[in-house]
Amino acid sequence: MMADLVLGLEVVLPDGQIWTGLRAVQKDNAGYALRRLFCGAEGTLGVVTRATLRLHPAPTRRVTALLALPNPAALVRFGRRLRAATADTLVAAEFFSDTGLALALAHVPGLAFPLDTRAEAYLLVELATAQPRIPLDDILSDLLETGMEAGEVLDGTIAASDAQRAALWRLREDQPEGQRLAGAQAKHDISVPPGQIATFIARGQALCDSTLPGLRINPFGHLCDGNIHYNLTPPPGARDFGAADIAALSLSLAALAQDLGGSFAAEHGLGRSKIALADALRPPVERALMADLKRALDPGGLMNPGVILATDHKA
Amino acid sequence: MMADLVLGLEVVLPDGQIWTGLRAVQKDNAGYALRRLFCGAEGTLGVVTRATLRLHPAPTRRVTALLALPNPAALVRFGRRLRAATADTLVAAEFFSDTGLALALAHVPGLAFPLDTRAEAYLLVELATAQPRIPLDDILSDLLETGMEAGEVLDGTIAASDAQRAALWRLREDQPEGQRLAGAQAKHDISVPPGQIATFIARGQALCDSTLPGLRINPFGHLCDGNIHYNLTPPPGARDFGAADIAALSLSLAALAQDLGGSFAAEHGLGRSKIALADALRPPVERALMADLKRALDPGGLMNPGVILATDHKA
Repeated sequence: MMADLVLGLEVVLPDGQIWTGLRAVQKDNAGYALRRLFCGAEGTLGVVTRATLRLHPAPTRRVTALLALPNPAALVRFGRRLRAATADTLVAAEFFSDTGLALALAHVPGLAFPLDTRAEAYLLVELATAQPRIPLDDILSDLLETGMEAGEVLDGTIAASDAQRAALWRLREDQPEGQRLAGAQAKHDISVPPGQIATFIARGQALCDSTLPGLRINPFGHLCDGNIHYNLTPPPGARDFGAADIAALSLSLAALAQDLGGSFAAEHGLGRSKIALADALRPPVERALMADLKRALDPGGLMNPGVILATDHKA
Repeated sequence: MMADLVLGLEVVLPDGQIWTGLRAVQKDNAGYALRRLFCGAEGTLGVVTRATLRLHPAPTRRVTALLALPNPAALVRFGRRLRAATADTLVAAEFFSDTGLALALAHVPGLAFPLDTRAEAYLLVELATAQPRIPLDDILSDLLETGMEAGEVLDGTIAASDAQRAALWRLREDQPEGQRLAGAQAKHDISVPPGQIATFIARGQALCDSTLPGLRINPFGHLCDGNIHYNLTPPPGARDFGAADIAALSLSLAALAQDLGGSFAAEHGLGRSKIALADALRPPVERALMADLKRALDPGGLMNPGVILATDHKA
C-alpha cells in the first residue's frame, strides 16, 4: 500500500498549526506513529501538504504473461505457488473472470483476446527486476510448467514485445470501462486473505443468486493481497438493480468478507458511502475509538465532516 | 520494521473493553489505521493480547560475506550498490567499525577475525532466497568485484560452511557484549537516511572529540535502513564518563541525527529515558498531538504512565 512507502509527512492541522514530520527514515519510533495515522485518514484529521516517500530501484527488465485457469480454486493454488517462487520480482498478479472479459470485449473497441481457450479465470502475471543475473524468463517458464502439470493453468501466452505486453494489460485495465459501458453497476472493494479468494467467490455467487438471479458477477483484482473488486451488472436485458436489493446484497457481501478475515474497504477507504457498512459490521468499540481520535485531533469537526464517521456519531 | 508485518491486533483498552481487530489482510482501509497506532505505542494506549502477522517464505539458500572497507564514505557508496543489485534477496547488511571489532576481540573469548586486512569499516552481507533459479553466488561475486574495482571494498571472505557463517555473525553480534565487558558505556539508537551515514559518523566524531577527547566510538548497525547504534566507551584508562558531559553529548548527537533527516529513537522507542530528548528536539506541535492521542484513548492515564510522555505533559 502507498501508506507503507510514506516515510514523512507535513500536515496542516485543524487549528491551522503545521506538523512538520518530514523525516526520511524507515525507523523513527519516537512516540506514536503519526505518519501512519494521517495516511488513510481521508483528510478528516488534517490536510497533507508534503510527503517524503521511500523509493525502489526502477526495474530494467520485465516478463508478462496472460494465463487461463480452470476456476478460482486453481487460481488460489497457483497464487500460492507464485508467491513462493517469484521472490519479490512479482510486480503484478491481476486476476479476472470470463464475465469481465466478455463485458470488455463486447464494449471496448480494439481489444483482442490472444488465447485459444476461454476459461473461468484469467491471470495477468508480471515479473520485473533491475538485477541482470535474475533469469526472469526461466522463473516464469518454471512457473507455467509446474502450474500446467498441476492442472492449475490451462493455457497461456508470454508477451514477446512491449506492444504485446500493452495489449495484455488492456484486457485487464479496460474491464472497468467495459462494465461501465454495459450500463448500471454496483461496485465493491473487498479484501480477504489470499487463500480465501475462491471461497469468497463461491459464497458471493450464492448470495447474488439468491438475491438477484442472473446478475453478471465480475470479480477481478490483485491475487497476492486478496483484494477483489467485486463488481455487478444487472442480468442481460435488465436496465438497473432494485435499490433495496442491491443494498441488502452489498451488506451481505461485506459481512462475508469480514467473516473470512477480510475487509469491505480494502483500498478505497470509507468515504461517506461506506459509513453505514462500518457502523453495521465493525465492533462498536472500534467505531468509538475512531470517534475518540477524530474528537481529539479535530474537536470542532472542521476537516472533511461526514467522512469515515457520521457527523452525529456518538462514542 | 515489525510494525510493517502486523496485519491485525487484539488490544485490551484502558477501560477494560477489548478491541478485536484480528483481520488477516494487508488492505484494510475502513477508517483510521488503529493497528498502526497501537504498534510502537509502548503499551501506553492499551495492552496487545493477540496479533495476526504477515509471513514470507523461509529462504532455502544463503550466502554470507564479511568485507573490509576503507572508510564510512565507501560504506555508503557500496550500500547504494548493494541495494540496487540485490533485488530484495538482501537479508542483512550489518556494518561495524574497527573500534567495535577491537573491543569484541579483546573481551569476548573465542572470536577469530578471518581477514588479513584491518580497516576503518566492515560489512557483513547476507543474501538469501527460496527461489532456486536466483544465482546468489554470482550476484555476490559481481558485487565484490565491482566494489573492489571502485575502491569501496579492500578485502573480503565468503563463508564456505554454516560454521564459517556463524563465526562471521559472531563478530557482529558479540560487539555489544564486548563493549559491555569493557566497562561503562553510553548507547544511542540513531537513524539517518542511508546516504547520510558517513556524514553522521564524521560529524559525530567531531562532537565527541570536542566534548570528551579520547572516547572510543563504536558505530554499528543496519546499512540499508540507516540505523546506527552509536555506542561510546570512555577513553582507555578512564572508568566512566562525566554525567553532565555525556548528557550534553547525547543531546548534540540526537540533534545531529535530526538535522540530517533522521531520528534519535530509531528502533527502541522513547521509553522514559528519551522523553527529555523528544521534548527538547521534536516540534511542540508533535508532542502536543501525542498528548492529545494519549488523553483521548487513556483519559485516566492508567496505561504505562510516564512512558512516551511525561505524566505532567501539558498540550
